[in-house]
Amino acid sequence: MAENEEKELKKDHFLHQFLNPTSIAIFGANDNLLTTMGSMQLRNIIAGGGFANSIYPVHPRLETIQGFKAYESVKDLPIIPDLAFLILPTRAVPQVMEECGQKGIKNLLITSGGFREIGEEGVKFSKKIDDIATKYNMRFIGPNCLGIYNAWYGFPEMEDAYLNTFWPYAIPKRGNISIISQSGTIAAQTFWHAKEMGVNISTSISIGNERNIDMVDFLQYFKDDPRTEVIGLYIEEIKRGKEFIKVAKEITPFKPIVAIYTGGTIAANRSIKSHTGSLSGNQKIYDAVFKDSGIISTNSVKDFLYYLRTLSFAQKYNIFMKGKRVGIITDSGGSGSMMAKSLELYGLEVPEFSTQLKDELSELIPFTASANNPIDVTFDANFFNLFYKFPKMLMKSGEIDGIIVWGLFDFDDVMETIENSGMVIDENLKKMSFMLERSVLKPVKRLMQKYSIPVYFCGPFPYRFPWFQKFISSELPTFDFWDAPPKCLKVLYQYSEHRKKHT
Amino acid sequence: MAENEEKELKKDHFLHQFLNPTSIAIFGANDNLLTTMGSMQLRNIIAGGGFANSIYPVHPRLETIQGFKAYESVKDLPIIPDLAFLILPTRAVPQVMEECGQKGIKNLLITSGGFREIGEEGVKFSKKIDDIATKYNMRFIGPNCLGIYNAWYGFPEMEDAYLNTFWPYAIPKRGNISIISQSGTIAAQTFWHAKEMGVNISTSISIGNERNIDMVDFLQYFKDDPRTEVIGLYIEEIKRGKEFIKVAKEITPFKPIVAIYTGGTIAANRSIKSHTGSLSGNQKIYDAVFKDSGIISTNSVKDFLYYLRTLSFAQKYNIFMKGKRVGIITDSGGSGSMMAKSLELYGLEVPEFSTQLKDELSELIPFTASANNPIDVTFDANFFNLFYKFPKMLMKSGEIDGIIVWGLFDFDDVMETIENSGMVIDENLKKMSFMLERSVLKPVKRLMQKYSIPVYFCGPFPYRFPWFQKFISSELPTFDFWDAPPKCLKVLYQYSEHRKKHT
Repeated sequence: MAENEEKELKKDHFLHQFLNPTSIAIFGANDNLLTTMGSMQLRNIIAGGGFANSIYPVHPRLETIQGFKAYESVKDLPIIPDLAFLILPTRAVPQVMEECGQKGIKNLLITSGGFREIGEEGVKFSKKIDDIATKYNMRFIGPNCLGIYNAWYGFPEMEDAYLNTFWPYAIPKRGNISIISQSGTIAAQTFWHAKEMGVNISTSISIGNERNIDMVDFLQYFKDDPRTEVIGLYIEEIKRGKEFIKVAKEITPFKPIVAIYTGGTIAANRSIKSHTGSLSGNQKIYDAVFKDSGIISTNSVKDFLYYLRTLSFAQKYNIFMKGKRVGIITDSGGSGSMMAKSLELYGLEVPEFSTQLKDELSELIPFTASANNPIDVTFDANFFNLFYKFPKMLMKSGEIDGIIVWGLFDFDDVMETIENSGMVIDENLKKMSFMLERSVLKPVKRLMQKYSIPVYFCGPFPYRFPWFQKFISSELPTFDFWDAPPKCLKVLYQYSEHRKKHT
Repeated sequence: MAENEEKELKKDHFLHQFLNPTSIAIFGANDNLLTTMGSMQLRNIIAGGGFANSIYPVHPRLETIQGFKAYESVKDLPIIPDLAFLILPTRAVPQVMEECGQKGIKNLLITSGGFREIGEEGVKFSKKIDDIATKYNMRFIGPNCLGIYNAWYGFPEMEDAYLNTFWPYAIPKRGNISIISQSGTIAAQTFWHAKEMGVNISTSISIGNERNIDMVDFLQYFKDDPRTEVIGLYIEEIKRGKEFIKVAKEITPFKPIVAIYTGGTIAANRSIKSHTGSLSGNQKIYDAVFKDSGIISTNSVKDFLYYLRTLSFAQKYNIFMKGKRVGIITDSGGSGSMMAKSLELYGLEVPEFSTQLKDELSELIPFTASANNPIDVTFDANFFNLFYKFPKMLMKSGEIDGIIVWGLFDFDDVMETIENSGMVIDENLKKMSFMLERSVLKPVKRLMQKYSIPVYFCGPFPYRFPWFQKFISSELPTFDFWDAPPKCLKVLYQYSEHRKKHT
């Protein structure tokens, strides 16, 4: 974020008001968080901690909702809230919109489904809400969406606040990735994994049917938003093709875009039509659009998260690849061989090291080990070498542009297992995980920045294990297996080239 | 396992003795579990609980090791152990083998590296150990390997015992999958994930350089082993090509084989050479071999585990696909669309339902929802419908051959979040996870068996969450995202067809 800190927030852009309302009216919430989605959404707005008393539930019967005074009608509100949030049955929407218009509310978030995605009757309803919006000069996100997650809400005045209108409650770490999604699931339900894997989010928008505000609007906003350095898109249909391509081309030289496009097959098109009512198109057209605008695309949600994380790290620390040569450091031959193969299949190189570099490395590893690329240290558990010294030697050699280290274990778990087996372990050793931060994690990140060479760390434990969480919370690229690092380096290389060519 | 229960164990096969020794001599262990790999391996043998007092550490100086009396030389042992396990410096191996031969030990496991994989001198050493083995009529696994994991060791006399000569200590659930790997990492370090994902292992063998016993030997053994119903291979080189193809062709009609082949690119070949010393070959030859023998192959370790798990479930419960038509039931449009697209890209079908079936389904879902395929119930949290009733209706219709359900959440976590927000939750609801087992998990598995239609459950939480672990421990195919289910159904369909054609 460093280089962007001085850039001003686009407070005059109409979407800034949507993402940063100071007061909010909510329709469709009650006290039953289990059965009413709107109640869970209100719960999450409250949990975000940003609103103090400026939350105004509207309900025909209830006097209070989740501790807040409820109002029978929006007309009764003591203020004109910045945002009205409608989670109502479809039929109730036009009437409430009318009342909001009369009240003077300008921004709406409409979760309700049942519009064009259900067919003819829904299309009629859509036109109705268009007319009401025009009449009162209102803008709205939706319908058929989950709304907004803004991790920077209230920042810096409120350090820990956020705005979350989704029903899922998991909150990833605050970061530089913004997502614009035509599916609420991709916008919101990815957060459990995002939190665990260290995919750090700035903003996530579920835009639904895009009746009034669309993906292009948000792209234009995020283009200049200093808190957004990477953009993720979930696309079922691009509505304004020309404008999309134009703004995407302006963005990608500075901020990478990763996209999922989910049309182009028979059943997917049918599914999409009943989902948001979009008319999705031919895969080849989308492939051409993505290629032309420098957008990285994938059909996998896990890879979507991995690529966003990869580019988030690159952007935040300004670490791009200057070439395609990858060095592998491993304590296991099998993972090294598999990664070497994958890297080559992805078009990267795993070059043999120079004699000089091999000689230098050989002095530090067992005679049964290999100083070739991959460097296979076999069972030599010198983690300072593995995590810091060898990466440093490779960086200094000038022979590689990216590094993957295999050998990250959860040493706390290993130690615990050993202690439970009756061995007494030196207290100093147990402090290893504390020492690690000072002697390895920070220094290796500094080296990455100095040489602009990324180092990816991977090992065989699920992310939940403490050492993996330690690496992740230190914002090092960390992987729970060896499949993803080669893929992510490929994407980083691809984007590094695109950036070089266009800036 | 049901249909195999009567089949006898192949107790007369020489590998049966390797996998089920009643006594074991170990060279290269001491009391320092942190710095000596052999000590960790001894720890794991002890932790397996199968040996009582019949573990015999041999050490030139120590009197006891990890609580067991140590012997200065193998000559001093009071018995002739079934297996000698050597984790020694390379140079010490021939002498110790000689002594084992003199003692009358017939089976050896040689972990030590430093043989052909290090070049000329190592090749000399390899020939030396060949000669010693011939002289004393000994067989050995390795060198350069981690050895054996046998989940069925001591069964049924010892319910909880196992044999583990690896250094990693994680133990997956006992199952019907056997792995033969030319890499210790794939044989052993996959276990942390295997445990979490429910990849249930029978036997896992790290066979190293295959100097004496090779992959074909183990394939021949597992072919008739009633405890092995699925086989996983990690291949850097196939040594006996003709025999490999022959036995693989005999196996795959009854027991699926999933293989990783890790050669065929420049750096991979170089890496492999320094790893096990194999001469790996052209990818196209391997592709042809796999196709010809009905082997399912992948370059991804995560997919390797997923495919093994997929086929393990199919084999155990005899649930194969009769066709390629997949029904999707989801509470989220985005995941449904993405899965529909992936399924079609993999060559499966996501057919539109008949009018009759659509009408039946429509009665049970909100009017904003879609009864098409995918069935998108939107935010209708009736989990009995989602997990049981809808799958049953699809099964009965005869219109589909496989089902994916998206909408598995960790309801304990959801409830906890809601309770922490101040809502009082009915005690009966909290018991939901207990009721689930009786009313959904077991019944849906019975339906799957009745119709031979698999139902895959997926949701957005990492596997560690309690409800995911509950589904996994009930042995239901469970997924922590929506990328893998379409891939796994493709593999299941592919294998179902192969099986049908060849049996």
